[in-house]
Amino acid sequence: MFFTVSMSLDGYSAPVSMDGIIATGEQRQQDPRLDRWVAQWMELHAWIFPQRFFRENLNLGEGGEEGVDNDVARHAFERTGASIMGKRMFDLGEKSWPENAPFHTPVFVLTHERREPWERPGGTTFHFVNDGIDSALKQAREAAGDRDVRIAGGSETILQYLNAGLIDEFSIALSPVLFGAGTRLFDGVDASRVALEQVRSQPTPRATHLSYVVHAR
Amino acid sequence: MFFTVSMSLDGYSAPVSMDGIIATGEQRQQDPRLDRWVAQWMELHAWIFPQRFFRENLNLGEGGEEGVDNDVARHAFERTGASIMGKRMFDLGEKSWPENAPFHTPVFVLTHERREPWERPGGTTFHFVNDGIDSALKQAREAAGDRDVRIAGGSETILQYLNAGLIDEFSIALSPVLFGAGTRLFDGVDASRVALEQVRSQPTPRATHLSYVVHAR
Repeated sequence: MFFTVSMSLDGYSAPVSMDGIIATGEQRQQDPRLDRWVAQWMELHAWIFPQRFFRENLNLGEGGEEGVDNDVARHAFERTGASIMGKRMFDLGEKSWPENAPFHTPVFVLTHERREPWERPGGTTFHFVNDGIDSALKQAREAAGDRDVRIAGGSETILQYLNAGLIDEFSIALSPVLFGAGTRLFDGVDASRVALEQVRSQPTPRATHLSYVVHAR
Repeated sequence: MFFTVSMSLDGYSAPVSMDGIIATGEQRQQDPRLDRWVAQWMELHAWIFPQRFFRENLNLGEGGEEGVDNDVARHAFERTGASIMGKRMFDLGEKSWPENAPFHTPVFVLTHERREPWERPGGTTFHFVNDGIDSALKQAREAAGDRDVRIAGGSETILQYLNAGLIDEFSIALSPVLFGAGTRLFDGVDASRVALEQVRSQPTPRATHLSYVVHAR
């Protein structure tokens, strides 16, 4: 099981949390913090938008860059047979993903809400799991077949699995940006239990792609 | 003007601050947190200890690794004509540096304490500056000649210069370790003013050496 996220140089995987981030133009005019949120989020993920894989996967049209950034994005997608995500990430995504959601595999959502599976065109089906991270992992492993399980996010969900010793490895796209505030990816990590081995570090002009294997201390 | 520091993957440049870190064996037996502090500090800087330059500079004997890690350490030293440091870093170092302190250039210490210059064997002289960061920089620039001024640390001093727009570039040795707590290098950065351009990213088996040029937003 793995995760892969973009992180600012100062350790943030998301800007300062805001309700109503997916805002209309009118809302954004009323609250300039929404523009700031979007601008930071765009900077954090700037490395992926021009990539051929990203454009293909979201049906944004032909073309795009090919190279290490593209390979990293494509590889993370292709190795994933099922994803797990937290409720907050799902709530945000439900309002912003295109109808043809970009996972194209089963997705297991950790939530207290009881809800029937939600099937989207293109192979993404969201399953709502009410009985904890171990159950979600078990279901995701079964659904993934011979591919891997990815923790899609957010950072709280990632940290739950990391601190439980259930993450085998992870990758970070380290973006050349400082946030100063926001959601810290590793906030709450149990550093006395988690040791890292750096297994790959690939610089590109847009980011540095870091990969680590997780060991118990 | 530049700085170069080691940072954990979760953004810490030092473990949790403790008084009396330079502790006797007896003190360390009484307070196991001291051992933890030292162990974390060693992990953070693990990349530099085996290097030939590090051993030479501290008179630890012949030999040592040569390669990118060694080149990075040597280059940072050789380009430095004068250093600036905060009072807390000086206080800690005063108790732990060898008599032949490892700077071998003038060092300007930001402090409220009035004190005569303190000359050490081997070319290091500590000058105590009581009138602020601009004055320290002016004096350091004059002392550095055609070499560069390095902000040696700690992170508060680095952030003062970074937020004042006075840092041209910096390098980070990103170590494969999570701290979970401690002193965050970029805590308090004015992210609305500081933009980064990644200019170099060199992986080694021990760390990833990242270099950024600083631009005003």
